[in-house]
Amino acid sequence: MKYDAIIIGAGYAGVTAALNLKRAGKRILLLEARNRVGGRIETKYFDDGSYVDLGGQWIGPTQDRIYALAKEFGVETFKSYDQGKSTLLFNNRLKAYNGIIPPLPIYSLLSLDAAIKKMNKLSKSVNLQQPWLTPNAQQLDSITLYSWMQQQMSSKTARDFFQVASEAIFAANPAEISLLHALFYVKSGKDLDSLMNIKNGAQEERFVGGAQELVNRMVKELQDELRLNSPVRHIDQDENGVDVIGEGFKYSAKKVIIAIPPALASRIEYNKPLPPNRDQLMQRVFMGSVVKCYAIYKTPFWRERGLNGLCASNKGLITVTFDNSPKDGSKGMLMGFALANQAKSFLELNPLEREKAAIDCFAAFLGPEARNYDLYIDQAWANEEWTRGCYAGIMPPGAWTSVGKTLRTPCGNIHWAGTETSDIWNGYIDGAVRSGERAVSELLTIS
Amino acid sequence: MKYDAIIIGAGYAGVTAALNLKRAGKRILLLEARNRVGGRIETKYFDDGSYVDLGGQWIGPTQDRIYALAKEFGVETFKSYDQGKSTLLFNNRLKAYNGIIPPLPIYSLLSLDAAIKKMNKLSKSVNLQQPWLTPNAQQLDSITLYSWMQQQMSSKTARDFFQVASEAIFAANPAEISLLHALFYVKSGKDLDSLMNIKNGAQEERFVGGAQELVNRMVKELQDELRLNSPVRHIDQDENGVDVIGEGFKYSAKKVIIAIPPALASRIEYNKPLPPNRDQLMQRVFMGSVVKCYAIYKTPFWRERGLNGLCASNKGLITVTFDNSPKDGSKGMLMGFALANQAKSFLELNPLEREKAAIDCFAAFLGPEARNYDLYIDQAWANEEWTRGCYAGIMPPGAWTSVGKTLRTPCGNIHWAGTETSDIWNGYIDGAVRSGERAVSELLTIS
Repeated sequence: MKYDAIIIGAGYAGVTAALNLKRAGKRILLLEARNRVGGRIETKYFDDGSYVDLGGQWIGPTQDRIYALAKEFGVETFKSYDQGKSTLLFNNRLKAYNGIIPPLPIYSLLSLDAAIKKMNKLSKSVNLQQPWLTPNAQQLDSITLYSWMQQQMSSKTARDFFQVASEAIFAANPAEISLLHALFYVKSGKDLDSLMNIKNGAQEERFVGGAQELVNRMVKELQDELRLNSPVRHIDQDENGVDVIGEGFKYSAKKVIIAIPPALASRIEYNKPLPPNRDQLMQRVFMGSVVKCYAIYKTPFWRERGLNGLCASNKGLITVTFDNSPKDGSKGMLMGFALANQAKSFLELNPLEREKAAIDCFAAFLGPEARNYDLYIDQAWANEEWTRGCYAGIMPPGAWTSVGKTLRTPCGNIHWAGTETSDIWNGYIDGAVRSGERAVSELLTIS
Repeated sequence: MKYDAIIIGAGYAGVTAALNLKRAGKRILLLEARNRVGGRIETKYFDDGSYVDLGGQWIGPTQDRIYALAKEFGVETFKSYDQGKSTLLFNNRLKAYNGIIPPLPIYSLLSLDAAIKKMNKLSKSVNLQQPWLTPNAQQLDSITLYSWMQQQMSSKTARDFFQVASEAIFAANPAEISLLHALFYVKSGKDLDSLMNIKNGAQEERFVGGAQELVNRMVKELQDELRLNSPVRHIDQDENGVDVIGEGFKYSAKKVIIAIPPALASRIEYNKPLPPNRDQLMQRVFMGSVVKCYAIYKTPFWRERGLNGLCASNKGLITVTFDNSPKDGSKGMLMGFALANQAKSFLELNPLEREKAAIDCFAAFLGPEARNYDLYIDQAWANEEWTRGCYAGIMPPGAWTSVGKTLRTPCGNIHWAGTETSDIWNGYIDGAVRSGERAVSELLTIS
């Protein structure tokens, strides 16, 4: 039995690829290490019918490919709650404010605004398909986003705010990120405003039924092709095709699409070792780190006080929160991110300490009512064996311009998908879908 | 059959650990993926009794632990050839010069000298055992070595020279390296002068019989314990001990010492996944990239012209060469490094193109006589399945201060060795030896 293609990883990238290949009449197999589909998108369903998104959850304007899928499969979306004032806890002062301009000292605001505009402008020069061909690529790739922030903003408060926003966007410390990668990422999602905002931004909408609902529906068409609990350990290839091997299975195919992050792809053993520069790439593209923390309340009590649940702080382990209540507001669900270095500190705590740390942050933002929660739950993505970090793989300085060109280049019969390989909405669900479509077009073009 | 300890990787770190544990009366097993010992140290022996070191080869002052082993096992060392003038091909001009001060314009020299002194001074503040506790660690870890060079040296020629030297020291582009890591590395090997120089430096001596000779002698005491061709795929552990599993074998032990680089340790599967911050570390510590290229001549013809074979250039794929002739000078062996981005470009060439590219560089340095070679040979370490880069694992910005503390921390019954874990001569053979000794002292202390 020889398949036309085997797809490894049943996240949005892999499922999209599998579905499109099947619909093109190809005999395929979709292998997933976990006992569920969705990858970095995971919805936890409670007995009472409510649910929380433990992973990726948002969808917004220009994310056309994921919107198209949602429409096709009849999954509805709804607006993220953003009525009322946001909350800022900066330099130990708590302030509520309307709109998207934070109540910082005027000098800090001007400094911040100039930096945002400068970054948006700089990002326009990036070559999305081949970032290493961006004008001045070598130099942009030689410094960290942190260094650029230091150069651009003389106000420490402005830098702090920029850092909180950056960490919420990348789930990584600006010190870790190549400036070229940051610019690439920003342009890939249109601009910084688009990445940061709810309204007209990447956080504008959520999925009714949770972000896993759509991929669950997609795989209904793949009942015969999907194998859960099937981690791939080994890939053998020669000019005729590939053997894909795991514990208790060995499947043959003409082609394979690896739809998992580079950091995990490096952990598969290849009988014909991948080219050295491809291997060096996989050694460099590290996963961000984020813990998603939820407190669930009888009601979204902050709404009654005219707050939208959107809080930001330059102190504490949780630096950003969102109102993640259900569409009908029948419960209050406050979601907070522990990001980058804060995620790493958070992960050194035991479960009780984590709960206390998260609730302390929520109470600092929204007052003592935040302590009257019914349930606390968190998900640490760096602790997930089959993801090992979120939101996505990130390029450290020097990677794009030295080995970046290996990111999407097929290795013999091995093709690459996953949101890390997308030039549009890289790191987002939409990017994952696009990467699956692109990998399929590679296969259909050559076969 | 349950061993006291299993050591994974028979490079200098693993062999040192195995030997010391055996001598302490422990029942041990030493597993090696390759069909030889030595790891990143590999000597190729020719039929006529001559040899070349394809990997690590030098030994110098204060590398006391490797010197002690050499003495114990009766391996002699000899001075690297450094008589006569060095050669500089900078900004397309070829110059020969005496001593260690390159013939650059005086302004560039002053700029370069100030930077070297500044780096030596800065490095003194590093906490070698816990680099994340270095004063100002967060900031030092947030910028690249490249950024620091830009700040310190206004002369482009000075920066170019510094870059050539840095790449020869790290086998990585300054853009990729955390400044904190660079400072750590410099102090770990005493100072920049010590790392750069032949006389009184890390390149002062070589091993008679090649750098693999010593480890070959060491493993003679480990005939019953060494298993070659035994790549480890899987490690299961519980509170009682570990199972170490590969194709066709499964061994049990109380403890395991993993003496391979972090980037490769991540590719072993752990039944009890390693802690998230440890995993994130392994995603970040990338291997440098270097190709070691040899041209072998009837005689070291450059010596007759008063040259020492030490050349440096800011142009071309090979930027540094050394006289690697045998102790008695009976042949001429010129060795050149393709480093960092140049190594990556070099690796995209086919074998004939590589040979031509290397010889072209040699001829540019030493004239047309360099084209009359008897043999060309190169070794690309990023292409070695069981190393995947050289000289060593390197910390990108942000790694030391976020997850660096997991580098040496045992994970249950798993202990870590390898030159990457050494605080003295990190990245060198001496560091490997020290790491093996340190891991053994951990095991003997707790058991």
